[in-house]
Amino acid sequence: MTIAQKIKLSIAQSSMIRKMFEEGALMKKKYGADKVYDFSLGNPNVEPPDKFKKELINIAAKNISMKHGYTPNAGLAETRKAIADKVNKTYGLKLRADHVIVSCGAAGALNVIFKSLLDPKDEVIVPLPYFVEYPFYIDNYGGVVKFVQTQADFSLDIRAIDESINKRTKVILINSPNNPTGKVYSKKNIMELAALLRKKSQEFNKNIYLVSDEPYNEIVYDNIEVPSVLKAYENSIVAYSYSKTLSLPGERVGYIAVNPKISEVNDLISGLILCTRILGFVNAPVLMQRIIVKLQDAAVDVKIYQRKRDLLCEGLTKAGYKFAKPQGAFYLFVKSPIPDDVKFVKMLLKKNILVVPGSGFGGPGYFRIAYCVDDATIINSMKGFEETINDTR
Amino acid sequence: MTIAQKIKLSIAQSSMIRKMFEEGALMKKKYGADKVYDFSLGNPNVEPPDKFKKELINIAAKNISMKHGYTPNAGLAETRKAIADKVNKTYGLKLRADHVIVSCGAAGALNVIFKSLLDPKDEVIVPLPYFVEYPFYIDNYGGVVKFVQTQADFSLDIRAIDESINKRTKVILINSPNNPTGKVYSKKNIMELAALLRKKSQEFNKNIYLVSDEPYNEIVYDNIEVPSVLKAYENSIVAYSYSKTLSLPGERVGYIAVNPKISEVNDLISGLILCTRILGFVNAPVLMQRIIVKLQDAAVDVKIYQRKRDLLCEGLTKAGYKFAKPQGAFYLFVKSPIPDDVKFVKMLLKKNILVVPGSGFGGPGYFRIAYCVDDATIINSMKGFEETINDTR
Repeated sequence: MTIAQKIKLSIAQSSMIRKMFEEGALMKKKYGADKVYDFSLGNPNVEPPDKFKKELINIAAKNISMKHGYTPNAGLAETRKAIADKVNKTYGLKLRADHVIVSCGAAGALNVIFKSLLDPKDEVIVPLPYFVEYPFYIDNYGGVVKFVQTQADFSLDIRAIDESINKRTKVILINSPNNPTGKVYSKKNIMELAALLRKKSQEFNKNIYLVSDEPYNEIVYDNIEVPSVLKAYENSIVAYSYSKTLSLPGERVGYIAVNPKISEVNDLISGLILCTRILGFVNAPVLMQRIIVKLQDAAVDVKIYQRKRDLLCEGLTKAGYKFAKPQGAFYLFVKSPIPDDVKFVKMLLKKNILVVPGSGFGGPGYFRIAYCVDDATIINSMKGFEETINDTR
Repeated sequence: MTIAQKIKLSIAQSSMIRKMFEEGALMKKKYGADKVYDFSLGNPNVEPPDKFKKELINIAAKNISMKHGYTPNAGLAETRKAIADKVNKTYGLKLRADHVIVSCGAAGALNVIFKSLLDPKDEVIVPLPYFVEYPFYIDNYGGVVKFVQTQADFSLDIRAIDESINKRTKVILINSPNNPTGKVYSKKNIMELAALLRKKSQEFNKNIYLVSDEPYNEIVYDNIEVPSVLKAYENSIVAYSYSKTLSLPGERVGYIAVNPKISEVNDLISGLILCTRILGFVNAPVLMQRIIVKLQDAAVDVKIYQRKRDLLCEGLTKAGYKFAKPQGAFYLFVKSPIPDDVKFVKMLLKKNILVVPGSGFGGPGYFRIAYCVDDATIINSMKGFEETINDTR
């Protein structure tokens, strides 16, 4: 046995998203990129805001002395302060700079959070369908995933969550706006969850944490509001990423914001800092740390994604597909016209359309469309979507 | 209990280096930065090569379209190829681009390697003294550290390593040029190690891997040669960082290079790619990936460090300190004039000199000086070093 047994197993069961992505690369070579409709990956195609480029040029030109040295593991003081100020301004909260840890994106943030919180066999509740990487992030630190069903519109099923909490429950992990559904949990839904977690924390005499993965926080449509979990529930931690709001997923920068009301909050902060160090992140890339100080009010133009969503929803509705219209993020979770989603995805593949089976997200009977693509890809794919659904009739 | 028990314990025993660093920050506030001689941290003070700045400005200006998107988890094809080409050119090897994974520095690389290789209870041999983070990196994935003594000049003690290998041994982790000693293992020493590992791999009918942590690879003095482990031993893996060679430790970029001769090498590569993904690194920061393509032949001016080493060695020798003259990196591991190194470090602290006790590296009776500091810091600290050793007489 060369490599770790668990890793060998994981490779064999490797992510369906990546498989589609690789399949897509092969198809593009064969048919030409404009003849393949690749909706498989959430790699945003919208440009970063102009201000980002301006700041990058600015910092590159000024880059004279020691600008690339290690920062404290938690990030630069000015970056932590700028983030805390923005969170406070947006939600009327009172975080100090030291309630913020600058992270290597939301993926880095979640790994640091779970490493800090989880003792072996601690349980983490994850609503279905879920972002494919969550089970890995939890298992990395000996945690055990407990999936719970959501309601028909993908909002949280508070009763199902209630029933799945026990004395080993340490965290509930939510993601809103959601990947893969585009759902944004309502304020009412979040308040009900907070009330339940408060009750259960008391019942089991421990903190049950609400960890909220929010890389799509500002990517919302129709003026919908994303309620603040930090405001709703005292034992809450936010994992945020600039990957989508500023369209820089490859640069690996985001943050962890912890609720100042968490009991023993200083222990938690020390733990997060230690884990940033010992997991080998060390610090978030320093050039990006400097840039995002200046970009707290910048964001990509969400109207572009909204237009894509509308194009896609209209076309698919006309063709006869069923789905809950997404309120945020850039994903559409569509009901497969036949029960076997993997089979349907293979049918779409014959029309050069790449989407990911819902089964890969714990949502069999659906497929996911990532619509962070050119308008032309959406428009030109419609014929294939129509023909495929007609073939099932 | 709020956070994970193991993390709570680790915080309590937190790194001595960081403690000295924090102590230093307080002292600098109190006495003024020029009155504190801070040798505690390996944060290079030499500027990145001019070419780095030029390329950064260049890329910032050209930064037009999709330059910040996710890359493949293993890194950009062009970056992997540039690195493979450089390694091949330097050592006369035949790595392909896919034997290279671009990583978030050497710290990220080592975490990815250990996650890929270690099953629970697998043993990793670590020569003493060692870089303080190694035990964390190994424990993160359920590995067990086995320390082995080195010889008086800090070269590898092959007999000690021989005696410590058993059927649970999976990896021996070396670091040359070494932190904290500055030792560079000779070609003979490495060849002896390779022969031993080859014999033991056969004896136990398994691969015993040589993992070589090489962030200081090019920081060597007096034209000394750093032998290639990839050339010396078939089951070898290199973790490299641009942090020191290009003076960009905060930007988090490095690589993993695997020996093409490893049996089941494709499994290992798949494992490394998967672990880059699931540990939340996702990909090395893309802007840096693009820049280092162009900087394969650039390096900081090592003469600057050599001058600092010589200044320091002359001064300390004159004062009566004993040490093995470092051949590389920017650390000096000095024999404590009294057996209790922690006590001696506290004596130096009274002269506003910050160094780290050897105990923190598993080398009691020594202390570490990181001499990547201004020449003035070295020169002005000498009085304090002299007075302190005289106080012990």
